[in-house]
Amino acid sequence: MSSTLVTGIAELTTNDAPGRVVDAAVVLDGDVVAWVGAAADAPAADARVDVEGRAALPGWVDSHTHLVFAGDRGAEFEARMAGEAYAAGGIATTVAATRAASDAELQGRYDRLVGEMLRGGTTAFETKTGYGLTVADEARSARIARSRADAVTFLGAHLVPDGRDADGYLDEVVGPMLDAVRPHVDAIDVFCERGAFDEVQSRRVLLAGRDAGLALRVHGNQLGPGPGVALAVELGAASVDHVGFVSDDEIGMLAGSWTGGARGTVATLLPACDLSTRMPFAPARALVDAGAVIAIASNANPGTSYTTSMAFCVATAVLQQRLTVAEAVRAATLGGAIALGRDEPAPGLPDLGRIRVGARADLHVLDAPSAAHLAYRPGVPLTHAVWRAGERVV
Amino acid sequence: MSSTLVTGIAELTTNDAPGRVVDAAVVLDGDVVAWVGAAADAPAADARVDVEGRAALPGWVDSHTHLVFAGDRGAEFEARMAGEAYAAGGIATTVAATRAASDAELQGRYDRLVGEMLRGGTTAFETKTGYGLTVADEARSARIARSRADAVTFLGAHLVPDGRDADGYLDEVVGPMLDAVRPHVDAIDVFCERGAFDEVQSRRVLLAGRDAGLALRVHGNQLGPGPGVALAVELGAASVDHVGFVSDDEIGMLAGSWTGGARGTVATLLPACDLSTRMPFAPARALVDAGAVIAIASNANPGTSYTTSMAFCVATAVLQQRLTVAEAVRAATLGGAIALGRDEPAPGLPDLGRIRVGARADLHVLDAPSAAHLAYRPGVPLTHAVWRAGERVV
Ligand SMILES: [Zn+2]
Ligand SMILES: [Zn+2]
Repeated sequence: MSSTLVTGIAELTTNDAPGRVVDAAVVLDGDVVAWVGAAADAPAADARVDVEGRAALPGWVDSHTHLVFAGDRGAEFEARMAGEAYAAGGIATTVAATRAASDAELQGRYDRLVGEMLRGGTTAFETKTGYGLTVADEARSARIARSRADAVTFLGAHLVPDGRDADGYLDEVVGPMLDAVRPHVDAIDVFCERGAFDEVQSRRVLLAGRDAGLALRVHGNQLGPGPGVALAVELGAASVDHVGFVSDDEIGMLAGSWTGGARGTVATLLPACDLSTRMPFAPARALVDAGAVIAIASNANPGTSYTTSMAFCVATAVLQQRLTVAEAVRAATLGGAIALGRDEPAPGLPDLGRIRVGARADLHVLDAPSAAHLAYRPGVPLTHAVWRAGERVV
Repeated sequence: MSSTLVTGIAELTTNDAPGRVVDAAVVLDGDVVAWVGAAADAPAADARVDVEGRAALPGWVDSHTHLVFAGDRGAEFEARMAGEAYAAGGIATTVAATRAASDAELQGRYDRLVGEMLRGGTTAFETKTGYGLTVADEARSARIARSRADAVTFLGAHLVPDGRDADGYLDEVVGPMLDAVRPHVDAIDVFCERGAFDEVQSRRVLLAGRDAGLALRVHGNQLGPGPGVALAVELGAASVDHVGFVSDDEIGMLAGSWTGGARGTVATLLPACDLSTRMPFAPARALVDAGAVIAIASNANPGTSYTTSMAFCVATAVLQQRLTVAEAVRAATLGGAIALGRDEPAPGLPDLGRIRVGARADLHVLDAPSAAHLAYRPGVPLTHAVWRAGERVV
């Protein structure tokens, strides 16, 4: 793979010292960034692309999605918007359709969504199992997920399947199901919410995952106050996601998890989900002001947030959750990378979420002179060009 | 121009009896719709396009935009999002840049925005003057606006230019400026708001427009309660736009303006503007429930709502203003046509906003099986194909 000089960048968001660079250029070499700086100082490269005064930033890192599924829930959504209450049972619809789908259908739908994400500037993402809920179906979902995702999370504990009792089902989740998915996944997750799994059950899932060497994630505090945040922080989870209903104490726990150089728990905001379920927004401003580390993710799934648009999530976080543009963009790039444990390089794995030497060459060029246009021009498709691991994909 | 059969439409929104048609087809002949019905019954045509199970609806009718301008206010937007209060004086920045721009620059920027609108499914739109504010600059803006828009509105009464007194400036607006723009415009508008023009001044502008044979529009009740709605209804304005701060009495006036078969005043919602100014949303649900006729428009302008995305406006109206998908889609198509007085055919002017025989052949095909996906998948670009006046443009 050869090197490419991308120049003519009016404003470059690096998420690294020295922050925003104006009149910038970047050299991509193989799958990593080889040089970053002022366009006037740029070295030569094998190829040269002039983006003519556009803004550039790291590709989105979408750290929370549910992309391996089949079925259609458009009619359910429309009915809910016309006044019906959100039925968590909707997940069962997707589980039935996913089990019934062929491998090829699941892979094809997944590939289409990944293509849509790339066209919107998402160059790295996590996705979860959780619509199989049998040993064979979860293992299949994990294997398919692995084919495209940068990180795969086991969410056997999404809900208790129809006709099963919770504890009997969890015996399977932490036993044969975990064994079956283990070759394909990096993390374990649990839906810790009234109507799904309680604190004791959630702890059991997370401890089993930890024993298996997995990172921990928690779906918590989405539909009301609950034990999810405290449990995530106690167990050193990489992230706790939703965080719609959190007290000042819980915000303090999340911020405190990062003190003294410790690797803490990221609070992941899912603004499109808050909107699609007509729930209050997570307290983004309070979290940032308290010093918590936040990510913004799409939660792309067919029930509660069927969007892959990170630009929409960023616009919403700015316009409605009162983050600054810089805070929201950082949360949707470096914040996601931190949630995935990919903000620093590891052997064979360049880091994500920054434009700096050695980072994966994931570059997103906007059809706009500044990243502020992501919120200034909501709904307008602004993705102009995308490189993923050095390869131009848009 | 030859005829085209568009078939394979999974769900067709017609805004006409019988409403939604499943497994539908449409024949476009010249610039109008020649046939609508079940795909199985469709007649032959010169060409045939199978949209393979996608949804279709009338092209968006964006009845409120400000597209003829120059200058950049991205930095002002970003600062406002970081905590500064909205300064109405920001308009003066755009006025200065617009006056300084060449005809070619204004036309080029306008053409780019119109192209963006077409790519997003907007096939008919109104736009306003209001960034010239001298006789020559308003006439130039009106002439450029006319080159692309379906309706042009004179907004000399946008604000009092620096260094002028309000009444002296209005002498010019209702005198030589109105004369100069008259050949290019269909309607007159006034920014009836504290800090702009009061009730007496607004009435003067509107009456002058009425005497000149123009339709009337009012920017009203955006930043607080005010006389805009009552004045609009009293004078039989075609629309009053913003309507963020309206009482139950004012909602009743708007609904009442349509009783007894009268042609009333449309209440135009501008949800992207409400968001971008972090103001409360207009009470869409209460307006619809009271029987008011509503439109949804983008208010595309560089200060308070720099988006052309009608899909974003519709998604916002559903997710946050609690309209049903059907109500929001209708408001953004037929509602806009009513606001522009284009919902019925006139000599040489086919009607807009419906898919029915004789209507302008403006068809918007989504990359989704139902129109509900516009709100179900917020931020995802869903425009798959667009015909405007029978010509395929996307
Ligand atoms: Zn989730
Ligand atoms: Zn306006």
